[in-house]
Amino acid sequence: MTGNPADRAGAILEIDLAGIAENWRLLARRAKPAECAAVVKADAYGLGAARVAPVLAAAGCRRFFVATIEEGIALRRVLPYPAEIAVLHGPWPGCVGDFIEFRLVPVLNDPGQIAVWRCAVTQYGGGSAMLHLDTGMARLGLTMPEFNRLADELSRPDSIRWRALMSHLACSDEPEHPLNGIQHQRFAVARQRLPGFPASLAASCGIFLGSNFHLDFVRPGAALYGLNPQPGCPNPMKQIVKLRGRILQIREVDQGQSVGYGAVHVMGSPGRLATVGVGYADGWLRSASQRASGRIGGKQVPLLGRVSMDLVVFDVSGIDPSLARPGGFVEFLDDEHGVDAAAIDAGTIGYEILTALGRRYHRIYRGANGSLC
Amino acid sequence: MTGNPADRAGAILEIDLAGIAENWRLLARRAKPAECAAVVKADAYGLGAARVAPVLAAAGCRRFFVATIEEGIALRRVLPYPAEIAVLHGPWPGCVGDFIEFRLVPVLNDPGQIAVWRCAVTQYGGGSAMLHLDTGMARLGLTMPEFNRLADELSRPDSIRWRALMSHLACSDEPEHPLNGIQHQRFAVARQRLPGFPASLAASCGIFLGSNFHLDFVRPGAALYGLNPQPGCPNPMKQIVKLRGRILQIREVDQGQSVGYGAVHVMGSPGRLATVGVGYADGWLRSASQRASGRIGGKQVPLLGRVSMDLVVFDVSGIDPSLARPGGFVEFLDDEHGVDAAAIDAGTIGYEILTALGRRYHRIYRGANGSLC
Repeated sequence: MTGNPADRAGAILEIDLAGIAENWRLLARRAKPAECAAVVKADAYGLGAARVAPVLAAAGCRRFFVATIEEGIALRRVLPYPAEIAVLHGPWPGCVGDFIEFRLVPVLNDPGQIAVWRCAVTQYGGGSAMLHLDTGMARLGLTMPEFNRLADELSRPDSIRWRALMSHLACSDEPEHPLNGIQHQRFAVARQRLPGFPASLAASCGIFLGSNFHLDFVRPGAALYGLNPQPGCPNPMKQIVKLRGRILQIREVDQGQSVGYGAVHVMGSPGRLATVGVGYADGWLRSASQRASGRIGGKQVPLLGRVSMDLVVFDVSGIDPSLARPGGFVEFLDDEHGVDAAAIDAGTIGYEILTALGRRYHRIYRGANGSLC
Repeated sequence: MTGNPADRAGAILEIDLAGIAENWRLLARRAKPAECAAVVKADAYGLGAARVAPVLAAAGCRRFFVATIEEGIALRRVLPYPAEIAVLHGPWPGCVGDFIEFRLVPVLNDPGQIAVWRCAVTQYGGGSAMLHLDTGMARLGLTMPEFNRLADELSRPDSIRWRALMSHLACSDEPEHPLNGIQHQRFAVARQRLPGFPASLAASCGIFLGSNFHLDFVRPGAALYGLNPQPGCPNPMKQIVKLRGRILQIREVDQGQSVGYGAVHVMGSPGRLATVGVGYADGWLRSASQRASGRIGGKQVPLLGRVSMDLVVFDVSGIDPSLARPGGFVEFLDDEHGVDAAAIDAGTIGYEILTALGRRYHRIYRGANGSLC
């Protein structure tokens, strides 16, 4: 008698795995002859690293980036060695053994992390690492003075197998920003001191700054998942996610009726409202209140009032009642109005729309030709 | 050789289960002689319904509210019948069997849901339900005209066992808002037509609007988890969550150095920065960029620049280096600067701070006297 999860779901999130592989291949072609890695941190930007990473490995990706050691351990379960899994936050004394056991590659961000890893390599006998140089983010990575102090020592034969010298661009979404050239120049100077280290500077947007940013390998994340790596230009990436929410109730309302918390929206005329089972607890950010919209049958329906924890209300006055009915669906994310557009509605960036995607959604993964997988 | 999860965690979230029980008892005393239910939807506002609900049941709570049928099924696994579990979004044809199988009580929001449930009760032989009347939210619940049309029929002996007539206040966080009185009055009129139905109108804030809002039972959620049910007044609730993030790196920076994405923060003087492994993928909302702060040893440290996906940067220039060191911690949420304060920093409400709390945090649950549980 128990129903199936899709039938009882308040909202359905479709994730196009084949599209992610297609996006990776597009980026890999664009970056050639540089190698193309893949960033699958934050659970593959909310889409499920355990589903996404094997598909990328099958497409030819050999090098993956996660943020934390926990993410690295989880990823190793689905990506057997020798797939390379690099951990951006690096090691500290409490987790060195985990790096060794799961054959994870730490990104070393400061002299302390280098020392911790050197000690581990001595103790356990050999280990790979990447070196992170900060060229203008002031976030993670060696400062220039630290690098200059250590470079001679690092250039000598070493028990650490150095898999990369990397840096990260702060303004790659703004091609004209002067910091891009400054960071590129600083990195070029640094590379000369460590000529044996494969070099990497570009993430998604950086790939589109020109081939001089590609170096030995690139590390796209956002563009794999459909975000536009060239804001303001047509998006070359395939849209990956679709989200639709179930209409729980339709109501007729009079002029003057207030809608939702705080009574902040007041109907200017009589109308018909659809209440849908998606809210900020599902990552549909509360900042989208009174700004976002959904779509039914290709027609836009404005979101009225505040986003609630588990619910939003749309004005469906202009929609055929055979479409706007309980049990029907409102599209939240689709090919026409994708993640980047939803981000503008919520006053944020597409990255946050993705990583906020909720746990209550029924998830459907699609492979080649839209087949379920 | 593998480390323990707390040692490798980038951030640690502590949840005070005993404090939640204490908050429930405070609210139950306040609402007496009305019964006190508990709202544990959205995974107990992000804190873990499977951990929270049994503690509330042990404290004496007999009636629980979730939003969705999936949440109801999951909760039934930890709360055996006869604990009452009501599902706010109600039933639709695809999930009626689940309601019966897991002995869940649907909240019926419109004539269609009443018909679906009446049909199920006939087919499966008996079942409880609650009736939801909309008195001013225009979100879920019967409209007044629908109610007036159905009330006589609903007042007659019925195969549905009616567990409640409920409504929900739109502006209960603003005691002076005229809609509170209007909703109370509309609900009072409606109750007269269904005298056999236990009546419920108040959630957390509603409990503090006065005893005339308590009726037969109250349904607190937010206040259980430490949010202030009387915004602008001293908070009578115990703070429930503490969040601290690990410092991954400390760096010295020069005047003029820009920090993070977009280079939006520029150092006005030389300083020292701490990079911490918490970001918007952990629910530390990007809207907190350049606004929020953390604390080290009781001293405030401002968040600089934009919140990244997995990282934030704090200015720790004024902090003793023995405290602001790699492996040390920055407090994000604590008794002094709790969820409501963090919400102001991010331009939202405490509810969203809670439901956004991330999956990557290492979670520690504490029971009586702070013991681990």
